[in-house]
Amino acid sequence: MATAAEAEAMRRAVALAARGLGHTSPNPVVGCVILDADGRTAGEGWHQGAGGPHAEIHALRAAGERARGGTAVVTLEPCNHTGRTGPCAQALLDAGIARVVYAVADPNDQAAGGAATLAAAGADVESGLLADQAAAGNEAWLASTRLGRPFVLWKYAATLDGRSAAADGTSRWITSAESRADVHRLRAEADAVVVGSGTLRADDPHLAVRGPGGARQPLRVVLDSKGTIAPGARVLDGAAPTLVAVAEDAPAVPPGAEAVRLPRAAAGPGLDIPALLEELYARGVRSVLLEGGPTLAGAFLAARAVDKVVGYLAPVLLGAGTHALADAGITTITQALRLELTDVTRLGPDLRVTAVPAVPAVPAVPAVPVVPVVPEES
Amino acid sequence: MATAAEAEAMRRAVALAARGLGHTSPNPVVGCVILDADGRTAGEGWHQGAGGPHAEIHALRAAGERARGGTAVVTLEPCNHTGRTGPCAQALLDAGIARVVYAVADPNDQAAGGAATLAAAGADVESGLLADQAAAGNEAWLASTRLGRPFVLWKYAATLDGRSAAADGTSRWITSAESRADVHRLRAEADAVVVGSGTLRADDPHLAVRGPGGARQPLRVVLDSKGTIAPGARVLDGAAPTLVAVAEDAPAVPPGAEAVRLPRAAAGPGLDIPALLEELYARGVRSVLLEGGPTLAGAFLAARAVDKVVGYLAPVLLGAGTHALADAGITTITQALRLELTDVTRLGPDLRVTAVPAVPAVPAVPAVPVVPVVPEES
Ligand SMILES: NC(=O)c1ccc[n+]([C@@H]2O[C@H](COP(=O)([O-])OP(=O)(O)OC[C@H]3O[C@@H](n4cnc5c(N)ncnc54)[C@H](OP(=O)(O)O)[C@@H]3O)[C@@H](O)[C@H]2O)c1
Ligand SMILES: NC(=O)c1ccc[n+]([C@@H]2O[C@H](COP(=O)([O-])OP(=O)(O)OC[C@H]3O[C@@H](n4cnc5c(N)ncnc54)[C@H](OP(=O)(O)O)[C@@H]3O)[C@@H](O)[C@H]2O)c1
Repeated sequence: MATAAEAEAMRRAVALAARGLGHTSPNPVVGCVILDADGRTAGEGWHQGAGGPHAEIHALRAAGERARGGTAVVTLEPCNHTGRTGPCAQALLDAGIARVVYAVADPNDQAAGGAATLAAAGADVESGLLADQAAAGNEAWLASTRLGRPFVLWKYAATLDGRSAAADGTSRWITSAESRADVHRLRAEADAVVVGSGTLRADDPHLAVRGPGGARQPLRVVLDSKGTIAPGARVLDGAAPTLVAVAEDAPAVPPGAEAVRLPRAAAGPGLDIPALLEELYARGVRSVLLEGGPTLAGAFLAARAVDKVVGYLAPVLLGAGTHALADAGITTITQALRLELTDVTRLGPDLRVTAVPAVPAVPAVPAVPVVPVVPEES
Repeated sequence: MATAAEAEAMRRAVALAARGLGHTSPNPVVGCVILDADGRTAGEGWHQGAGGPHAEIHALRAAGERARGGTAVVTLEPCNHTGRTGPCAQALLDAGIARVVYAVADPNDQAAGGAATLAAAGADVESGLLADQAAAGNEAWLASTRLGRPFVLWKYAATLDGRSAAADGTSRWITSAESRADVHRLRAEADAVVVGSGTLRADDPHLAVRGPGGARQPLRVVLDSKGTIAPGARVLDGAAPTLVAVAEDAPAVPPGAEAVRLPRAAAGPGLDIPALLEELYARGVRSVLLEGGPTLAGAFLAARAVDKVVGYLAPVLLGAGTHALADAGITTITQALRLELTDVTRLGPDLRVTAVPAVPAVPAVPAVPVVPVVPEES
């Protein structure tokens, strides 16, 4: 049984982990708190970016000698493999850690096995403490590992009657400053931001994260089969990297962006969504913020490639104008895409509604079995 | 200053008043608690229906001799006029009530003045206790008195993307059983339920309140300019009274319903909304539940004749199909109808969103000034 101090430390570790959101892909976010032998906090750390030290290493360094005989509280099972950094399980043992409490098992074949290694070496190992909170904090990474493609969050803004612009195309501003700031938070947490050529032409969006210089920027991705992007488009500035996805037979895209050629969609307009996601995954993208527009969102939904929906609903009625969502291949009510609300929050005058598909996407590859925590008999 | 016992009694009086919702028009709902001279509850009552005794009379009867020297706690200023029942101010004085605490002043010219009468006769009178709660309970009646037309609540059901049916017209069931039960509660609290001929043809709705036999039923109102209602339409059964509004030149409507001839709308399709509301007001209707469909709702919104919106949002996406709201005369974003959210409640899987126009409807007649509580110098 975990102690109250360990539960408190895990809450802290989950909060520390969240600081890494948007910075760690293809790695997970991880937070770690080292308690000394008396149960007092001796060190803290979080994984700050792929290639850098893991959370445990940061925390062990901060704890120094106080780690000896202490407990490591960590949001994810310590890794077992020597990648760009050494295995954390061994580092914990070397530092004299006597007990390891972690929240979520590592579903990753390569990295898993840390718990078994620790237990085999005589450490006291416990798993599952605050597992739900820790898993929620690592939602995109866990889902992408399970699905073998990036986790996709579709964000939209609409009136209460489902419009995203008035009849004449005007839409500034339907949602509030609070909602728009929240979208920037979503961008900052995403590895890539995706829009279709329609939105590009209509809005010339910038898609970068506002805020203090040096903020990490998501990859800006534009789906533009025909390669029609204007050389002066704002997404082509230097504020963040940009990838323009075009069809295999499209003309060259303007300089200033990298282009990738993708097959056309098997049915319907534009490019093949699974091929796009495969390409992004190969580039280390684990979370995608799909910013629309309605046509592209319909295609992602039809491809069952939306894992979470965040709607910013403004208390506004229009009665006409562009829809927040266009054709998703649904013609009758039994085909409707049913969701489950997971959160409803007031943001200034608006409502932010978060929902997940009632039937989640089917993994492309079978889920990796969870590694047992008990030492193997030897 | 009101005592804690009086505040408690007012909370109770507000709850008692609510029992009258849907039964009292053209009168308000009113609740009353009589406290004896020692501040203990001696009697309770609420107004149960127009023509019947007022709340104060019920409560005085229940209190009997214990009213002498006591306090009357009542949600609305006691009336001063002899209508179908005698003036309550006089009844309270006759029963020996020493103090009267009420929440909301009576905005009604005819009935007002009760507070002044009581004060002039030497009673201790205080107003404003829990005024907001009491006013909310009497929302429709207070607004209709101010506006000189019935209070209109527009109810709609939609997906998160603003659709009320799939592309092929199917819509059973977008919203949950919980949401549909809640709509029945709204119906039971309304004096009239209004739909357009489009909804009549598409859904053949019944519009009566489900529940134990003998439940009071709202007036069912169908807007059907051309008098095309089918003789077998379900609204024409005997479960509740029905009014079919037709244009002045329409053919006779089928037997089984009363018809009323109204002028055509000055602009746009169908009948004149202000004329309809005037007709309903003259019939004693103080609250209207507008059940749609989208075309009629658009016309009510364009006429600025919606005072409150209740949306049942199902966590469903369709991407095509009928809109929850059609043309409301809005072509550009600056004309958008801006609302303020007043309540957001989860109803089973759905979300119920309640909102009021950010700029409320302008009264047709100037608001009646509030009567002072202090006795006039004489
Ligand atoms: N409310 C919101 O949250 C929100 C968000 C974004 C945009 N918007 C609004 O949406 C409007 C633009 O809508 P839209 O529907 O024209 O734009 P869109 O969805 O951004 O772009 C659609 C275009 O993307 C390209 N595309 C590439 N692959 C595709 C695929 N697999 N499926 C579908 N499309 C694919 C196609 O053009 P090619 O053939 O050229 O590749 C397609 O025509 C603008 O008015 C914008 O303001 C609203
Ligand atoms: N989601 C929801 O909450 C909800 C609620 C109700 C209905 N619905 C759906 O809505 C669909 C029907 O939509 P609809 O728009 O055709 O029906 P509607 O709004 O119920 O009816 C429109 C008709 O009402 C008559 N009308 C009379 N006076 C009018 C006025 N001042 N303004 C506008 N119309 C006036 C007109 O026909 P005349 O010329 O014949 O008078 C008009 O064509 C159905 O599929 C139904 O299931 C959805």
